[in-house]
Parts: sequence; structure tokens; C-alpha cells
Amino acid sequence: MKLYTYWRSSAAMRVRVALNIKGLTCDHVPVHLVRGGGEHHGPAHAARNPQHLVPVLELDDGRPLIQSLAIIEYLEETHPQPPLLPADAVGRARVRAIAQAIACEIHPLQNTRVLRHLTGSLGLDEEARGAWYRHWVEVGLRTVEQLLAGSSETGRFCHGDAPTLADCYLVPQLYNARRFACDLTGLDTMLRVDAACQALPAFAAAAPEHQADAE
Amino acid sequence: MKLYTYWRSSAAMRVRVALNIKGLTCDHVPVHLVRGGGEHHGPAHAARNPQHLVPVLELDDGRPLIQSLAIIEYLEETHPQPPLLPADAVGRARVRAIAQAIACEIHPLQNTRVLRHLTGSLGLDEEARGAWYRHWVEVGLRTVEQLLAGSSETGRFCHGDAPTLADCYLVPQLYNARRFACDLTGLDTMLRVDAACQALPAFAAAAPEHQADAE
Repeated sequence: MKLYTYWRSSAAMRVRVALNIKGLTCDHVPVHLVRGGGEHHGPAHAARNPQHLVPVLELDDGRPLIQSLAIIEYLEETHPQPPLLPADAVGRARVRAIAQAIACEIHPLQNTRVLRHLTGSLGLDEEARGAWYRHWVEVGLRTVEQLLAGSSETGRFCHGDAPTLADCYLVPQLYNARRFACDLTGLDTMLRVDAACQALPAFAAAAPEHQADAE
Repeated sequence: MKLYTYWRSSAAMRVRVALNIKGLTCDHVPVHLVRGGGEHHGPAHAARNPQHLVPVLELDDGRPLIQSLAIIEYLEETHPQPPLLPADAVGRARVRAIAQAIACEIHPLQNTRVLRHLTGSLGLDEEARGAWYRHWVEVGLRTVEQLLAGSSETGRFCHGDAPTLADCYLVPQLYNARRFACDLTGLDTMLRVDAACQALPAFAAAAPEHQADAE
């Protein structure tokens, strides 16, 4: 398998964490999202993914899998141990919902293409762009904190005492939040879970600064 | 089960379609997203979902499931027939990726709370708000069209000749696109699939105009 990735892409980091937890190795092929207007917009990457996004997981037969959640569900189905989803259906729904609360309500609004549209087409300045970023990340993380703090299912990690799909989403989103100086006040449960994750080699090795293409 | 829903919510419509395909009935409880500033922001709905979003599927024991994709995966696991995901892992990854291409890259950018932020905090006028809406929906649908048109896996529906999770996402997104007069030129595969879906009672009965709370 080959993972088309970029060191600072939080969507790619989710998949890196999942691969690491499952002990799977694969070639990491960097796709630079900034240099020369972005290698992801070039024909080679567009052929892999019409969405021009990373990550892409290319299978050994050449078929490309796209969208981080679909990729991680594929890894879970084909390499079930250790599991990234709990054993019960309601627990699985909770873990997927936490991941989607990040993947659908936070990340799409702070993604690079949206920030470029704000400063390009809409003519916002740097300060307004930063305010947009922090607004959606902070609002979104506060609701995720409520999901975590309000449930007896939350343990050492987002769901119980082993990392799940939800943690694969939480830690990269917090990396982004810190990079853009978001206010993390009151996110006590989330920050405790984040610290527990960071202590695991699977998460540490997936961090942006430990990637071969880090700058 | 109870479905907390709103007639025009495309996220709720996805779950309505999935319930109908599986032949599952449940009480539909309308949550008005406009009246009085939005019932979804009231304490009763906030207790069900800290994200203040519909849909919420409340189980018979009172536990609330949130996020449409997590809810539909739960329905798929607990009521496997007829299936909404194909039998092979790569096919399942493709179907989930199409759904997520809509759920993560299109819908979050055209959601009501984002449109309100554009006209409220950013002071955009109606015309600029409409341009934003159409930009993200049109860009996003064109990439989904490429995913569909470029694959031999596409059949009468998004994946093969029976409706899947992907169709549960496509049809509501096209409803939104038409409502805001997006340009659908060139989306031939998608529009053919949409017509095939609309011909099925499961999709027709889930349409906004056929809901009890339709205005």
C-alpha cells in the first residue's frame, strides 16, 4: 500500500495514526500542498483523486481509496486487530459520531481551500481569516467537549480505555487548533484525552513534525 | 425509535431515505430550525444533541444517536437487509467516500449556520451569500460527478444497480442545489442516478415536500 500524504494535513494524520495503531506499514509518498500552487492540483494526483485532496491510500493493485473516514473503515474491516471501533453497535455509533462532529462540522470550515477563498474571492484580510478559523474550530471543539464530558462512555480515551477512530480525529484537530492559537479554555476532558494519546507511539509517530516531508 | 427531523434538512432526509429503504418505521418529531430562532437551540434539543443539529435518532431506551453517517451505519449494522453497503471492502470504501465527499466537502459549507455567519458576522449581502453557496456546491458536485462518471462501478445507482448509502447523500444534496439554483450543467451521470432514485418510493416518501411538517 502507498499513502499519499502531506506532513501538515490533519486528514492525512488521521490515517497515519490508524495505520500505526494497527501496526501496518506502507510507503509514504509526499504530495506538497503549497509548493508550485500545490502538487495536489497536478494531473498525477488528480488521477488518483478528482477531489485533489490528501490522503489517498493506494492499494497494491493500484486502486486508490479516498476520504479519511472511508479509508480507516476499510483498514478496520481488512485488519480488525486492534479494533478502532467498539464491539457494540451503539458504541460504534458514538465513536463515529465524534469523528464526524470533527470531520463534518469543524475541519471543512478551516481547510486550506476555504481559507484561500476567504482571502481571495471574498477579499478578507489576515485578521478576519484568523477570526473565521478560530470561530469554527472553537465552537466545534466546545460541542465535542460536551459529547466527551457528558458521557460515562468516555474513559482514558474518547471511548473507553483504548484509542478508537474518534481519537484518530481528535488529536489532529487539536494540532490544527494550537497551530492557529485557538482558545482551548474549558476543554478539560478533550485535553486529558489528547495527552493520553500523545503518550502513545502510534500518535507520536504520526505527528506532522515527525514526517519525512516536514519542513 | 424516534427521529428528530426537519422537513428541509438534507441531513435528516438522508436518514429518512435509509429508514425507508430498510422498511423501518419510527415516530417523526419535527424540530423547527427557523421559528423562534430555531427549536434546535432550545434546551430540549440541546440535551439530545450538544451540536444543536438534526437529525437525532432516539432509540427505544432513550439513547440519542447523532450525525447522519453514524446513524445510517448503525441502521445498517442492526438491520442489514436490504444492504446499503456493498459486499466487498473496496466497494464499501467507494460508497462511503462518495457519501463523505458530500458530507465533508459540500454540505458543511452550505449549511444554515455558515450562511448566517456570512451575512451576520462578515456582513455579506444576499448576492454574495448566494455566490458562496453556489460556488461550493457546484465545485463539490463536479468532483462527485467525476467519481461517478469515471468508474465502472457506477450502475443504475451510485454503486451498482441497487441504492446504497451514497445515494442517500446524493439525492438530498441535489435537492439543495436545485433550491438555490446551482448550475447542474455537465452532471449527466449524477442526474441520471438522481432520476432513478426519485422513481423509488423510499426516496419519494423522504422528500421534503412529503413530510408532515412541510410548509
